[in-house]
Amino acid sequence: MEAIRNYIQANRERFLDELFGLIRIPSVSAAEANRNDMVRAAEYIRDLLLTNGADRAEVHATDGHPIVFGEKIIDLSLPTILVYGHYDVQPPEPLEKWTTPPFEPEVRDGKIYARGADDDKGQLFMHLKAFEMMTATNTLPCNVKFMIEGEEEVGSVNIASFCTKNKEMLRSDVILVSDTTMISTATPSITSGLRGLSYIQVEVEGPDRDLHSGLYGGAVLNPCNVLCEIVASLKDRDGKITIPGFYDNVIVPTAAERAKMAERPFDQEVYMKSVGVEALAKEKGFTALESVGIRPTLDINGIWGGYTGEGAKTILPSKASAKISMRLVPDQKAEAIADLAIKHIKSLAPAGVKIKAEYLHGGQAYVSPLDTPEYLAAERAYEQVFGKRPIPVRSGGSIPIISTFESILNVKSILMGFGLEGDAIHSPNENYPLENLFAGMEAIPLYFKYYTELKRKG
Amino acid sequence: MEAIRNYIQANRERFLDELFGLIRIPSVSAAEANRNDMVRAAEYIRDLLLTNGADRAEVHATDGHPIVFGEKIIDLSLPTILVYGHYDVQPPEPLEKWTTPPFEPEVRDGKIYARGADDDKGQLFMHLKAFEMMTATNTLPCNVKFMIEGEEEVGSVNIASFCTKNKEMLRSDVILVSDTTMISTATPSITSGLRGLSYIQVEVEGPDRDLHSGLYGGAVLNPCNVLCEIVASLKDRDGKITIPGFYDNVIVPTAAERAKMAERPFDQEVYMKSVGVEALAKEKGFTALESVGIRPTLDINGIWGGYTGEGAKTILPSKASAKISMRLVPDQKAEAIADLAIKHIKSLAPAGVKIKAEYLHGGQAYVSPLDTPEYLAAERAYEQVFGKRPIPVRSGGSIPIISTFESILNVKSILMGFGLEGDAIHSPNENYPLENLFAGMEAIPLYFKYYTELKRKG
Repeated sequence: MEAIRNYIQANRERFLDELFGLIRIPSVSAAEANRNDMVRAAEYIRDLLLTNGADRAEVHATDGHPIVFGEKIIDLSLPTILVYGHYDVQPPEPLEKWTTPPFEPEVRDGKIYARGADDDKGQLFMHLKAFEMMTATNTLPCNVKFMIEGEEEVGSVNIASFCTKNKEMLRSDVILVSDTTMISTATPSITSGLRGLSYIQVEVEGPDRDLHSGLYGGAVLNPCNVLCEIVASLKDRDGKITIPGFYDNVIVPTAAERAKMAERPFDQEVYMKSVGVEALAKEKGFTALESVGIRPTLDINGIWGGYTGEGAKTILPSKASAKISMRLVPDQKAEAIADLAIKHIKSLAPAGVKIKAEYLHGGQAYVSPLDTPEYLAAERAYEQVFGKRPIPVRSGGSIPIISTFESILNVKSILMGFGLEGDAIHSPNENYPLENLFAGMEAIPLYFKYYTELKRKG
Repeated sequence: MEAIRNYIQANRERFLDELFGLIRIPSVSAAEANRNDMVRAAEYIRDLLLTNGADRAEVHATDGHPIVFGEKIIDLSLPTILVYGHYDVQPPEPLEKWTTPPFEPEVRDGKIYARGADDDKGQLFMHLKAFEMMTATNTLPCNVKFMIEGEEEVGSVNIASFCTKNKEMLRSDVILVSDTTMISTATPSITSGLRGLSYIQVEVEGPDRDLHSGLYGGAVLNPCNVLCEIVASLKDRDGKITIPGFYDNVIVPTAAERAKMAERPFDQEVYMKSVGVEALAKEKGFTALESVGIRPTLDINGIWGGYTGEGAKTILPSKASAKISMRLVPDQKAEAIADLAIKHIKSLAPAGVKIKAEYLHGGQAYVSPLDTPEYLAAERAYEQVFGKRPIPVRSGGSIPIISTFESILNVKSILMGFGLEGDAIHSPNENYPLENLFAGMEAIPLYFKYYTELKRKG
């Protein structure tokens, strides 16, 4: 670890320059206007891999944004670790809420502020530099592959077919992913579970144009009112989701498991203050933390319809739309849940409006066993870097491709995340502490070392 | 009437040029960017009045957009008609739905297409030209005054104080307003009642920034979901509004009055087809037409919150907002209803969100008696131009200042509207048939004639 620490110290400024170069490319996968930036970001990573010692590294075209693949094979009898990450980022809007522009990284108070600083450019960059350091110091203990995609924020649309087509090329023993959080550097944790996601978009269409709300209000159904009524009916007063069949496949952890999870330190006041609210929500029968970690939810991610400018426009809008996502837990299936939701929402349409609804993307939930070499290697690496054994945590977020990897490549993933909840990923002023960035660079080579040792013993 | 018809025929092209000049000024009162255009439109009307024979005409500054006043006094012993109109227009958005640009008027199939073609530039222009024609043909039978404002579409904020300050200048026997519709030229009608309006804006604020919907969804209340729940609860399954006290002052017309109103020809299929819906709404216990004409309503005019761009952004939004308007009937008071609504909405806020709500504007409902010289003169003018006695109709729209005029100036208004329901006012592709424009120019001088005669007899 000493050699790695010294290496980081000696190359700190260059590392930051390289990361900032990647961040400055506005690789927003949801925005058509940024299509060329996606290619630029992919090539940037390919070039880093080649410079840092990869045997091969290339940009693979897909039907959407490209995927970067790279590898260094030192001995086929040794384990192979496949590093997964994504170079695409969430849209930066609302721009006016950023203190400094989202694609102009700035270090303030020991944190890098920028879109992608954490999610996932900052975190994937730790792997690129860990790779450079192991290669440069001749300490790479096993084979390594990289698969870095550009569509994680829009549903990883093309990675499944990429995996299917390239099973042999992607063959590995474990997939290492840094795209999650830990509680803090004082209380390290490893994400041992993720929720799934089922994201749909709904449009309620009423009259064929915006109408005068006085001349028609009362006789013509208002799509905005109808949308609100439908959305409001999707949850009951206890916070239970009312879509028929929604809970059919939900696995509720045992009382013992829930007791263990409850040991996680949680200061409700600090939590509420960190997001600026005075009370928390929760599903009846579960704590707020359980509602995020082990229970499915339904949230509107966006809603729009009618006149939204300044002043008062008296229209009865023609249409209203909402983006609605459901977070899933084992064993809910993303597409099946979307089907149930869409069917139910359509059944709620009163005569006088039409409803269009489509499934945008999703993925299954994930839970990791805690007694495998894959998990134990991570536990030891964290313990050595942070001086404390990490707590396994079930997180509310989703990385839908984890279940895809398992089903197509038949490989388990380990979520070695170094972000913090305060990093404001997906929000204005996203940031990533330098402390976490460099701790990650130390922990990853340790993971490679322990994993190789544990696999040899096993 | 012959002289007037010939005058119109001889000056038709010039009339259209003058109207198009007014329409081309984008006098959108709700948009700060159009502030100078408001002054330009006011001066345009002042200049027309002076050119057309007014003794005086001037642009009066207010705290908002200016008001044009003009007059021609021929004999103080004769009645005085005060013409009211407005030169401001609704915002033209959504622009992409217009076949031709909103402020570039074009005649297609006998209709003028443009924002303001009907509401209210086209309709107020009929009065300017009726005035020109009566002056030019020496047939002006009484005194005439004009008060043309620029804030009708944003609540006529400053006209009340203008009236209060200028009571003497505005002294008149009747106020003539062309800002409403008729059923058709084959079935003429006069608006004998208007609904009032109470327009509010509501903002639900949750976390202090957009959050990651996976990491927080379930534990943090979602303002979009909360807004939907609140809005949905404002009406029950029967279409009744649930705000406590909302119906306290509602006057329900007698069974005899409702029977007379029901004589109005109404083809539900044609009505539904005209707006592109397959079923109508209504309040329980009332027909669809009654729900528009004699019952109060609540409509969302606009709703917004969270991510509304392309693709899927997984945020739990910080805020959600809605513009909500209630149409009122006698004797509901606009501000009192807004107070009730805001109080009720705030009372619905669950712990974990904050609600801001403000009253944007409004006005009282209006009902005209049918046996006065003011109404009878209009009835005769329509009968002579269209060959059929007009039906009195209670309309769902609002012109809040009508009740203001009554309370401050103590003068009744008559709503001589010549628009059609298909004119798409407040919508893309607003239009006004040339037939109606010119019929209005014929009917207005007849109103002046009959009103003066009836008042002399009276």
